Amino acid sequence: MMRIKRLEGYLENEGLDAFIIGLESSICYFSGSTSGGLLILKRGEEPQLLLPKLNLEFAKEQSRGCCLKPYRQKDLLELMEKILDNECKSIGVDELPLSLFNKIKEKFKDKVFRDRRDVVWKMRRVKDADEVKLLEKAGDLASIGMEAVREHLKEGVKENEIAAEAVYAMMRNGAQDRAFPVIIASGFRSAYPHADVTDRRLREGDLVTVDIGAVYKNYRSDITRTFILGVPTKKQREILELVLNAKATALTKYKDGFKCSEIDAAARRLIENGGYGDYFIHSLGHGIGLDVHEPPTIGEENSETLTAGNVATNEPGIYIPKFGGVRIEDTILVSNGEPKKLTHFDETIEDLTV
Amino acid sequence: MMRIKRLEGYLENEGLDAFIIGLESSICYFSGSTSGGLLILKRGEEPQLLLPKLNLEFAKEQSRGCCLKPYRQKDLLELMEKILDNECKSIGVDELPLSLFNKIKEKFKDKVFRDRRDVVWKMRRVKDADEVKLLEKAGDLASIGMEAVREHLKEGVKENEIAAEAVYAMMRNGAQDRAFPVIIASGFRSAYPHADVTDRRLREGDLVTVDIGAVYKNYRSDITRTFILGVPTKKQREILELVLNAKATALTKYKDGFKCSEIDAAARRLIENGGYGDYFIHSLGHGIGLDVHEPPTIGEENSETLTAGNVATNEPGIYIPKFGGVRIEDTILVSNGEPKKLTHFDETIEDLTV
Repeated sequence: MMRIKRLEGYLENEGLDAFIIGLESSICYFSGSTSGGLLILKRGEEPQLLLPKLNLEFAKEQSRGCCLKPYRQKDLLELMEKILDNECKSIGVDELPLSLFNKIKEKFKDKVFRDRRDVVWKMRRVKDADEVKLLEKAGDLASIGMEAVREHLKEGVKENEIAAEAVYAMMRNGAQDRAFPVIIASGFRSAYPHADVTDRRLREGDLVTVDIGAVYKNYRSDITRTFILGVPTKKQREILELVLNAKATALTKYKDGFKCSEIDAAARRLIENGGYGDYFIHSLGHGIGLDVHEPPTIGEENSETLTAGNVATNEPGIYIPKFGGVRIEDTILVSNGEPKKLTHFDETIEDLTV
Repeated sequence: MMRIKRLEGYLENEGLDAFIIGLESSICYFSGSTSGGLLILKRGEEPQLLLPKLNLEFAKEQSRGCCLKPYRQKDLLELMEKILDNECKSIGVDELPLSLFNKIKEKFKDKVFRDRRDVVWKMRRVKDADEVKLLEKAGDLASIGMEAVREHLKEGVKENEIAAEAVYAMMRNGAQDRAFPVIIASGFRSAYPHADVTDRRLREGDLVTVDIGAVYKNYRSDITRTFILGVPTKKQREILELVLNAKATALTKYKDGFKCSEIDAAARRLIENGGYGDYFIHSLGHGIGLDVHEPPTIGEENSETLTAGNVATNEPGIYIPKFGGVRIEDTILVSNGEPKKLTHFDETIEDLTV
């Protein structure tokens, strides 16, 4: 219960009387429970996990170090009233559904609710040794998924069939779920960074962007490779080479003390110099852990620096409307020494040509 | 663009000058785009879809009938300011992340933002013919997944391996994704209604609850069966029979004009009379469509009545701590005539014994 102790320390330092955790992944981080609800921590008291009645038995198995308070939807505010007594004046909040937040504000007019998600993320963005082990395993599973994809990539196969093979390989090997909806973006669709999966059949000459991740004990991984079906054209080769170089250059900077915006800039400069700056239309990376997208963002507008224990993706891309696109991504652990890849898959043009 | 036209009609009737749609599934409902962002409708104007810049090309392919406004995160409020001019005083909102809502309230102090998700749900809960087709397909895919599960259920197999087979079968046959994280709850774990998937191996005598769903063109299905591995004990048989009867009784009431709370009560009474009332710890069902949980809830506290076009689950369950549990669920379409099952799988004790 180190995590709860640290959160309590923050309460004191920040002049908060209580904290309401509403983000499901943060409830899991502090309590071990994946059943949602609300986790309420008052200074000097045991944390209380308010959760829908139907999840009580499951939470008994999963959770640690907190007092379980099952509720029925209509009784939630009343239950909160018993906990948030007159001593609680200033209350930190991370995330709540808007409708619930409005009801809470209405009910507790004398209390001040502060958006203090920063407090939670300050903790969550530095992964401890136990978390790193789970993230490594999630990374291994995603890598297995990518191997299965390569085996099944060929002309005539549908995007959704490729997606099925990826998820199947990850889950057969121990993943509890895919980390996010699989992206298989082939042909002109590879120009969409966040494409979904359709029944389009792969064709000779296609770029095929495959973006997958696994969930292992609630921790997530993220890996992308763009494959070329057949002999690469000059332009396909050019953009793939550029993205591979940008990724390699950026990777050397996933280290303690490097500024997020500078890491992004290193990759971006390379792609700009190659003449494709306008086609790199997203940030270089995002933090990942219990959520697939979490702090820190490796992007132009983030002046934070990386520290050991951060885990984030490194994923430069070039997207040319109507033509297609390329993205290469790994999940990276920032350590005290060299950056460590948590996802593993070949990344030369030859390896990616099938 | 019938849907937008209808929403505009509501604006007028409800005295709203504009509506901000922030729920991803509702943005999809009105615009066809799955790229998130915000959809803003002002009275008498074309709807504007504000979306992250990286999703612009994808949204061009997906969306219909709205003007696309790509933004970078830091420029979102400025862009909103151009749209929400002085004429917009009273603005309806369905759902927004809390941090964004706080920023919007801060920025637009002279405007009133009203939680009017009810307006959106009034529309979304009545499915049109196109939606029903997609829901039927999603239901068929879930049924295929359940067949694959039955083929692989045997002693020694791990929960996650069963889950892999379910997802694989659904996706190979055309699902773009699973509708929610698969539940395979075996043995004592079947007492947890919302269990996840572990590497527990199935054992002779286990109850095994399998809860799966498919996504087809963004529409979702939901089906549950509890299987018995080996010869059922008297108590296993008793609770399974009770749940099957409760489900059959409730099914006859998924009809236009029936009150949600009365449908729930019909199933609940039967389970209470059987002596297991304390173990039926959730509502009978939930609406389903673009979201896996949406209105209407088929529960004790919902006095709304069903109308033709509603789609909701019928899923009574009995959960006995340490012993195990049983849940049987189908997705049901409310029509003008008889209730129509959108998911299909055997439901006799013999069929569920493997």
